[in-house]
Amino acid sequence: MARIVMKFGGTSMAGIERIRSVAARVKREAESGNQVAVVVSAMAGETDRLVGFCREASALYDPREYDVVVASGEQVTSGLLAIALQAAGVPARSWLGSQVAIRTDAAHAKARIRTVDAHAIEAGWAAGEVAVIPGFQGVTEDGGGRVTTLGRGGSDTSAVAVAAALGADRCDIYTDVDGVYTTDPRIVPRARKLARVTYEEMLELASVGAKVLQTRSVGLAMKERVRVQVLSSFTGPDAPMAGDLPGTLIVSEEELGDVERQLITGIAHDKNEAKITLTRVPDKPGAVAAIFAPLADAGINVDMIIQNVAHQSGGSTDVTFTVPQSDLPRSLDALTQAQDAIGYDELLHDTRVAKVSVVGVGMRSHAGVASTMFTTLGQRGINVQAISTSEIKVSVLIDEDETELAVRVLHTAYGLDAG
Amino acid sequence: MARIVMKFGGTSMAGIERIRSVAARVKREAESGNQVAVVVSAMAGETDRLVGFCREASALYDPREYDVVVASGEQVTSGLLAIALQAAGVPARSWLGSQVAIRTDAAHAKARIRTVDAHAIEAGWAAGEVAVIPGFQGVTEDGGGRVTTLGRGGSDTSAVAVAAALGADRCDIYTDVDGVYTTDPRIVPRARKLARVTYEEMLELASVGAKVLQTRSVGLAMKERVRVQVLSSFTGPDAPMAGDLPGTLIVSEEELGDVERQLITGIAHDKNEAKITLTRVPDKPGAVAAIFAPLADAGINVDMIIQNVAHQSGGSTDVTFTVPQSDLPRSLDALTQAQDAIGYDELLHDTRVAKVSVVGVGMRSHAGVASTMFTTLGQRGINVQAISTSEIKVSVLIDEDETELAVRVLHTAYGLDAG
Repeated sequence: MARIVMKFGGTSMAGIERIRSVAARVKREAESGNQVAVVVSAMAGETDRLVGFCREASALYDPREYDVVVASGEQVTSGLLAIALQAAGVPARSWLGSQVAIRTDAAHAKARIRTVDAHAIEAGWAAGEVAVIPGFQGVTEDGGGRVTTLGRGGSDTSAVAVAAALGADRCDIYTDVDGVYTTDPRIVPRARKLARVTYEEMLELASVGAKVLQTRSVGLAMKERVRVQVLSSFTGPDAPMAGDLPGTLIVSEEELGDVERQLITGIAHDKNEAKITLTRVPDKPGAVAAIFAPLADAGINVDMIIQNVAHQSGGSTDVTFTVPQSDLPRSLDALTQAQDAIGYDELLHDTRVAKVSVVGVGMRSHAGVASTMFTTLGQRGINVQAISTSEIKVSVLIDEDETELAVRVLHTAYGLDAG
Repeated sequence: MARIVMKFGGTSMAGIERIRSVAARVKREAESGNQVAVVVSAMAGETDRLVGFCREASALYDPREYDVVVASGEQVTSGLLAIALQAAGVPARSWLGSQVAIRTDAAHAKARIRTVDAHAIEAGWAAGEVAVIPGFQGVTEDGGGRVTTLGRGGSDTSAVAVAAALGADRCDIYTDVDGVYTTDPRIVPRARKLARVTYEEMLELASVGAKVLQTRSVGLAMKERVRVQVLSSFTGPDAPMAGDLPGTLIVSEEELGDVERQLITGIAHDKNEAKITLTRVPDKPGAVAAIFAPLADAGINVDMIIQNVAHQSGGSTDVTFTVPQSDLPRSLDALTQAQDAIGYDELLHDTRVAKVSVVGVGMRSHAGVASTMFTTLGQRGINVQAISTSEIKVSVLIDEDETELAVRVLHTAYGLDAG
């Protein structure tokens, strides 16, 4: 008897007909002898509606009250799924975040899970019940016991945390794509679905724009060694069981094994970066710190950084880096205020850039990955504006207009095309 | 410093603009130095939407899960009102039913409040906060702590229960009428608003169709001696303070005093009754028990009962009584199944009837109230089909088409017309 956590997103919960389809899928999992806990999102659009109410009530809403309002969306779908399961002949009950209990810190609207007490769910299992748990919500761990939410996309994290607490054999994330692909199939029709991918790769892919799973949920799965499977919620009732692996399984590097290990697993792109350049920054100790300290103070994450060679006139250099586009206005503000302290000449910015990344655990043991990337892009006349690397990723910043071209030629160059 | 509970219904909470008006009203009450707890309903239409989801998910929905779904409506409005109050400069926080705690029995979807622990609210008051409490919801008092709801209209009862637990000086029920009238002003334009009415009178008026307050809330207010005021939520921001009594105050008979006491306080009508007649029931001991036992077993409340004089042919009699129209199909079913046991000839029913009641504590000490009623109706040719009385009420069953005429002539006959 396996322990399975199933998570369904808002599209799967949008209306009773779809909730009934979810119930049918859960029923098959339960009737094949598994102990099942289901984590659900709010109906698609409902969270936006509730957030809209809060914003309309006050631009400076109290996040503690926001959480009370917004958590109700998942409360509704968890009750409805329990009803739909019972109607399908499957004993089931809902467990609110406060009842499980899923305890979080007090960072309302973006809380982090501290502990999940799985005893209530296990007691329900012992009584033969499927447990239905609202994602995205918890309660503060102090005596107050106030409602918290985990931030948008938090239901993935709820599912992984519940799976970890239960020691689940697998955490199945049902979503509107049917797995993780070598790249965005809208750009490269010959992209292939990956049968397996490692946590580290998924983390890099998620952080650079492959929006299949919330980044935080992948990090938690890696830390807790939860086997996560991404699969489609829109295959029919006759689709193979989740245990037959129709989606993508996210596993540890050891589990992947040498045979399956590829040099490059996938190619991701991200158009939400903005490039900032400071010209004629004094070329002296402490100059770079003067630039990044005010950005760090403003809570802005700087990503790629390049320091150009010193100007021939001597004594100064240009510094270029990227920030998320949403942080651009605050970044420019912080840097303008710090102009005297930094001593730069001009403050330039450009949002027409994109970051393209090749990701793969195989590059740990293979040289030449970056070289292939630069050669391939250079042959097509694509100019690389900045580079950053991690142990299993190489990213380049290029002109936004060349994103699709770059993804396509790299997909071919690394031998990822299907067929 | 007075302790005031304010309760706002769904129409008052329908959208952020109205919630902001409610916040303005609460602010005036708080800023005049009172300690305030606010009990709120869900946005108008929201509970119907949620109930609709449950019914769509399963006609035989689990009431425990129904409660999880339906309680979310008040959770949303309590969070939003707290936000709106803060935006208006009034410190406030929401307290869910599980946080107060409002503990109930486990009769899900129609739970009864057992205890209200007011300590949390008082702690909030000590911190200078207005408490906002979702009406209609509670938690089971046993270890399970599951979400319960009190049944439709339950927010009035929540407000009175909270007021009782707090020892509140007054419980103000804001509604879409501006008080309790001598009769329905749509029927009698010269109906007068009552400044005061006793619990007993309100209970009789509520139970016979004057739908201002939920009957159960009036009973609880009487038991706990909570001073309840009914007043309109739609008067402007310059309306007099609630303490200036623009509505109707519901008080004990002692508080009312002799001066204010009138013979008849009001005239109510109810078109939701159905009349059932069994012909030729054997006129022998136990015959009546044979009729009403199966109805009691089916949980059906029988209201007015008349046993006609025995037929001249001897040995049998006709029995007539009324039940709520919504219970008519089940009543006919139960009686048909019991035909052999009862031994009646025909089973007749009629839904084109109405119950008209005159209510007043004054009739305790005055004879002739019923006599005036029958004389007045007789003069207008209105036939009385059944009669029932209580200590402070006389009700008659008449043809539904004559309801408005009966209410008008009685209103005049008892001297209730304004001006």
